[in-house]
Amino acid sequence: METSYLYREIFAQPQVLTTLYLEENEHIRDIAAQLRKQDIRYVVIAARGSSDNAALYGKYLFGTTTRWPVALATPSLHTLYKTPPRLDGALVIGISQSGKSTDIVQVVQDAREQGVPTLAITNDPTSPLAQTAEHTIALHAGEERSIAATKTYTAQLMALALLAAHWAEDKVLLQELQDVPAAVSQTLSLATHISRIAERYRYMEACVVIGRGYNYATAYEIALKLKELTYVVAEPYSSADFQHGPIAMVANGFPVLLVAPRGEVHAEIHKQAQALKAKGAELLVISDVPETLALARIPLQLPTSLPERVSPFITVIPGQLFAYYLTLAKDYDPDHPRGLTKVTQTR
Amino acid sequence: METSYLYREIFAQPQVLTTLYLEENEHIRDIAAQLRKQDIRYVVIAARGSSDNAALYGKYLFGTTTRWPVALATPSLHTLYKTPPRLDGALVIGISQSGKSTDIVQVVQDAREQGVPTLAITNDPTSPLAQTAEHTIALHAGEERSIAATKTYTAQLMALALLAAHWAEDKVLLQELQDVPAAVSQTLSLATHISRIAERYRYMEACVVIGRGYNYATAYEIALKLKELTYVVAEPYSSADFQHGPIAMVANGFPVLLVAPRGEVHAEIHKQAQALKAKGAELLVISDVPETLALARIPLQLPTSLPERVSPFITVIPGQLFAYYLTLAKDYDPDHPRGLTKVTQTR
Repeated sequence: METSYLYREIFAQPQVLTTLYLEENEHIRDIAAQLRKQDIRYVVIAARGSSDNAALYGKYLFGTTTRWPVALATPSLHTLYKTPPRLDGALVIGISQSGKSTDIVQVVQDAREQGVPTLAITNDPTSPLAQTAEHTIALHAGEERSIAATKTYTAQLMALALLAAHWAEDKVLLQELQDVPAAVSQTLSLATHISRIAERYRYMEACVVIGRGYNYATAYEIALKLKELTYVVAEPYSSADFQHGPIAMVANGFPVLLVAPRGEVHAEIHKQAQALKAKGAELLVISDVPETLALARIPLQLPTSLPERVSPFITVIPGQLFAYYLTLAKDYDPDHPRGLTKVTQTR
Repeated sequence: METSYLYREIFAQPQVLTTLYLEENEHIRDIAAQLRKQDIRYVVIAARGSSDNAALYGKYLFGTTTRWPVALATPSLHTLYKTPPRLDGALVIGISQSGKSTDIVQVVQDAREQGVPTLAITNDPTSPLAQTAEHTIALHAGEERSIAATKTYTAQLMALALLAAHWAEDKVLLQELQDVPAAVSQTLSLATHISRIAERYRYMEACVVIGRGYNYATAYEIALKLKELTYVVAEPYSSADFQHGPIAMVANGFPVLLVAPRGEVHAEIHKQAQALKAKGAELLVISDVPETLALARIPLQLPTSLPERVSPFITVIPGQLFAYYLTLAKDYDPDHPRGLTKVTQTR
């Protein structure tokens, strides 16, 4: 019987996403309406860890919907160097599960002092981050007891996507987001299959995780789960950056996990899968495209498809499950990764 | 006798930096004067590989001097998704050694079409990138024949730093930059020492490289050299991000290279060095601070010091040398890393 918090939180995701949509949809619509009256030219997002990976998704989704450029913040400019950038024209978003990360709070604090609009996305609407920001989107994910974030990661994706949808008045995107919880639920059916294939990677020490566009975030998030839980040195890359040097690492048998759902960037990733296979890489492929799955040593076939821009909700699931079952295969404790605590304080 | 292009290009850096300063200083002052008349709120930088690492340095240096926030571009929004963000208020900078990377050119092209100011930083002033941008800073580095970039990386740092200095009319920074070539030259004297210690890492397969603030870029660049040349899975981190999960990877003997020169972020990195040592990590430390060097299994003591904001010119040198000598220790070819070509075409 699976009793870890991590397992339960992975499987809670459909319900968390449903709750978030229901509880926050109208509130986010109101926030978007208020923000639309302000002179916003671009967005700055401050976040760390899994929240920073969610921010990466926001960078692409805001780009294609609201057409805002997104800068990821450099907290040390606010904390250690004490020279916060001039933020006029920016909307500043802080994302933190706990809402307690000092440096993220400081970025939002500096933005407020400069008089620019600020938004907190957090699981704790009473947290310092929420108290500092002008607007707050609560994640409604319930307490996250596992140290490795799963349900709050996909909840952060949902919060950002709802904001983008309302900002851009993109009704199609809103509809697509309604379909997400059921698709996540279907994708969780991969658990049994992944529990079996995880054994193969018991002695894997390093790997690369590749995604691009919307799923660049997915590559980062899967790599982070592998590092936190299985201590594998898992490096995330966009397929383009990977070609600019790091591809040299790949030799026979080198494990590469590819996030390759159908969509605009699929042709690129497919080409890279072919090149990696020719180099003898061992490919794990998360995809709903038969030709790409056919290149894999271990195909992880998505049981359902979503439009590419919301596909990160489901492509991350096999990665979470793989990290979970590999943790068990390596006889590590999924709820207590060594050296980590739930709230990480950084400056 | 050392005859590889890579070796010669590493040692050409003092001369390249001197030439660039002399040839471009006035030109960059003029560019800054023209740009200052425009309504610039923030900067977007498009780059890949080593150029992207130089961009990271720019992100911090622009932050503390011009106080501009910097967004790293998402080329796929311009190429694959064909939804370029709205760039009003931005200065768009493309950085590419060859000036031929299709996706970087496309970002600058889209920016020009939107009528915002654009700048190319490239080693080839006749390249497509230079022809597309409104302004061009040439690197004057001479042909780079090694596939792994070294002299063009530090030249890109110099181009960005000169722009920041002139933009912010920071005469102290200009003076600091004049001292850089001699300091780089002194730091190259570490070569013999590093050639000896490289043997120890003959069988290293993975490591982590940590820096923060200005030297976050250095961590990325050293990690990239290690990946390209030695095929070691080398992961770069800021000391803050590392604590948000990845620190779980560190067990007894795990190699961590710390970039820890004196300056505002030094106290943070020093604290992390202590924590990592307590976990049994094997520390290589690049620093000019005796107490931090004392924590290292292998200290790489900088023979000279520079103000933190220009320290990345010298802190990267031991990393370049380490990657070079480790390539030799592993019996690989420093001029022809497997699977790489000098000009990487990505979309």
